[in-house]
Amino acid sequence: MARPTPLSGFPEWLPEGRLVEQHVLDVLRRTFELHGFAGIETRAVEPLDQLLRKGETSKEVYVLRRLQEEAAAEPDRAGTLGLHFDLTVPFARYVLENAGHLAFPFRRYQIQKVWRGERPQDGRFREFVQADIDVVGAGTLPYHYEVELPLVMAEALGALREIGVPPVRILVNNRKVAEGFYRGLGLTDVEAVLRSIDKLDKIGADAVAGLLVAEAGATEDQARACLALASISGSDESVVERVRTLAGESNELLDEGLAELGALIRAAAVRAPGVVVADLKIARGLDYYTGSVYETVLVGHEQLGSICSGGRYDTLASDGANTYPGVGLSIGVSRLVSRLIGKNLVTTTRSVPSAVLVAVGNEDDRSRSDVVAAALRSRGIPVEVAPSAAKFGKQIRHADRRGIPFVWFVGDDDQAADQVKDIRSGDQVDADASTWAPPEADLWPRVVPA
Amino acid sequence: MARPTPLSGFPEWLPEGRLVEQHVLDVLRRTFELHGFAGIETRAVEPLDQLLRKGETSKEVYVLRRLQEEAAAEPDRAGTLGLHFDLTVPFARYVLENAGHLAFPFRRYQIQKVWRGERPQDGRFREFVQADIDVVGAGTLPYHYEVELPLVMAEALGALREIGVPPVRILVNNRKVAEGFYRGLGLTDVEAVLRSIDKLDKIGADAVAGLLVAEAGATEDQARACLALASISGSDESVVERVRTLAGESNELLDEGLAELGALIRAAAVRAPGVVVADLKIARGLDYYTGSVYETVLVGHEQLGSICSGGRYDTLASDGANTYPGVGLSIGVSRLVSRLIGKNLVTTTRSVPSAVLVAVGNEDDRSRSDVVAAALRSRGIPVEVAPSAAKFGKQIRHADRRGIPFVWFVGDDDQAADQVKDIRSGDQVDADASTWAPPEADLWPRVVPA
Repeated sequence: MARPTPLSGFPEWLPEGRLVEQHVLDVLRRTFELHGFAGIETRAVEPLDQLLRKGETSKEVYVLRRLQEEAAAEPDRAGTLGLHFDLTVPFARYVLENAGHLAFPFRRYQIQKVWRGERPQDGRFREFVQADIDVVGAGTLPYHYEVELPLVMAEALGALREIGVPPVRILVNNRKVAEGFYRGLGLTDVEAVLRSIDKLDKIGADAVAGLLVAEAGATEDQARACLALASISGSDESVVERVRTLAGESNELLDEGLAELGALIRAAAVRAPGVVVADLKIARGLDYYTGSVYETVLVGHEQLGSICSGGRYDTLASDGANTYPGVGLSIGVSRLVSRLIGKNLVTTTRSVPSAVLVAVGNEDDRSRSDVVAAALRSRGIPVEVAPSAAKFGKQIRHADRRGIPFVWFVGDDDQAADQVKDIRSGDQVDADASTWAPPEADLWPRVVPA
Repeated sequence: MARPTPLSGFPEWLPEGRLVEQHVLDVLRRTFELHGFAGIETRAVEPLDQLLRKGETSKEVYVLRRLQEEAAAEPDRAGTLGLHFDLTVPFARYVLENAGHLAFPFRRYQIQKVWRGERPQDGRFREFVQADIDVVGAGTLPYHYEVELPLVMAEALGALREIGVPPVRILVNNRKVAEGFYRGLGLTDVEAVLRSIDKLDKIGADAVAGLLVAEAGATEDQARACLALASISGSDESVVERVRTLAGESNELLDEGLAELGALIRAAAVRAPGVVVADLKIARGLDYYTGSVYETVLVGHEQLGSICSGGRYDTLASDGANTYPGVGLSIGVSRLVSRLIGKNLVTTTRSVPSAVLVAVGNEDDRSRSDVVAAALRSRGIPVEVAPSAAKFGKQIRHADRRGIPFVWFVGDDDQAADQVKDIRSGDQVDADASTWAPPEADLWPRVVPA
């Protein structure tokens, strides 16, 4: 075949880049598990009719067909499978399917690829990795989980600061505040208002005002009030008072939403100071959110868009008899990692796992090098053996090209001791494979700020 | 939605099952990294024409279409994407695409899902996880890698013995032996012979003899000789002599193959005693193998089929100007894990990560439980906080249902100390969140023999 070229929207990393991604995934997984989230995976496919229950994403779905199936001009939706476009819809299905085997509230994390047939852009891919946490209850789910989950994400993303990930700002809002406020104004098509407000960053206030009038049935005054609400933001409870003042008259939904938003802001100020900001323009496109909604920006990289979003949903998982309300957030791992790599924010100490290359003096003696390698590995040291019994200078260059810090020379038959060379300093010392170890910092490749 | 039902061929695990799978993946990854293999991932899709280069699997490919694309009666193969059906073909493409950025010989591991539109059976899925290791050289690749790679897999699978995975037997053969032998007999359609021999376990010797005559142009005598070769197996070098005796006349290809096979058997007898067996009936369906071929059975579960297969390939990755020969093996992780779970060979000490449930005495005091939880987590102890301030008996039952071994009671305002209860023994003692730790065996859920 001719040299292949990359497919736009389907990112792949060189080994160094994969080390960065793997490190990010390991840190996320550890944080999620420390918080008691159990890991699950769901299949990559869902029945198309399930994927299309929420209309917004219908155009982005990849549909599957087996090659030997007859191509139908109009595919049958019921039997057709599509690739999942997020991990929330499959998780809701998993909960319904396995409810009898799960203990509620059920805390799970899920790290998998998802696919969307969108036009690729910077940070927007057709195949990408998401890392989700959700808690779902059976029948009810206390509000405190809406406080807890963004703080888990704050901790997870904060744990990445040491490799050079910029600080994050988690923007929070509450659908009850928005809906209570709009209804208080006399606007009844809440979803249309939210859809318009959701476009604020993209098209600006004037255009959104136009949309509110044209599509949400708002008067000029109502539109202005909606935009005034969207302009409120802050990291302390004064936000609540500003909304109350703007609303004037109060109502039950607004009060409930403001109480929740205030509780979240208060808790976040203690547990993740400076990270969580109330931002009343956060709308989230998906119509299944019913309480808190979250978006997250990398400070200094706001144009990248949200790297961690989610919210509270009450009816996503329901089989008629039972409903499983939940709250969750999803990190766009590929968006984050592509930024870390693309802007050279992080680097790795080497591109291969091996800390040691065991040299081979003579191809007939390879087995002696294998024995040394096995001894080192048995003590947890990553090792590879040289590909050929080339001149030692060439074997050292082989290690150097990979960033392998140590080269091991097996002693000869005259009982000369084994020696190990730090090829960075040139220091070469006698060494015993049953006791020698590299410095901790050299044991495994590390991901560090660039 | 109504309660959904599983999709045949798309396995999903409950949290306990995922713990088993995750443990298997962690052990494989660690072993691969100790041997210096760098992890990569490739996108899930490849151009359909690339996937169909090897005809054998063409019928199993899932083809993708974006929902809003117009359905073409006869899809255009050049622009069409399909889901990869293995990790070898994508890896060969990755090597060609990135050759300028890789250091050769390039050692990589790759753990991902693959998809095949096959009829699901026990241990045969439409979506499953493979864990591959390969080494590819630029231009040349020494034989010793054909010895090394199955031994890495022997070590990786051997490391799973402690959780209850049965011992494995790695069956090896060499295409050069087979081809040299067949050509020595006067048979020239080597691929047709291999395809027939590959069916031996399924259809038996008599039917294969018929196939050899009908499809590979063999005489009855030649067919009998092919079956005699296929009947040879053993774990010491006597195998080489038996092949030589059967072949009678020797030829260069046969000699080379027997020398290689002998070297592998000798090395394996030292480094993985009792694991590697020469088995001259191993053919492997894929036509790109050119040297060693491998299959692996779980002892006592031979009917499950191979759980780790592969071989040497010389021309899979070639862009005309450069060729990258390689050798690799692939573990069928889903097949292995489904057997471990389905036959109750392994179990887990609990289904959730949490070692401790911090009780909540009063919903207004939840933040005090959060502080304890944070203190424990900061020292690496997985913790969750009770979902509600129910009676303590109910909170203990909540922990018990999840297998969480410890429940923590936060001291009251009268300076009473915190206490932690081992709910298995009922022992309850004073404890300080800045110093207490569970026994090592309770820290994380463990996967153990059932």
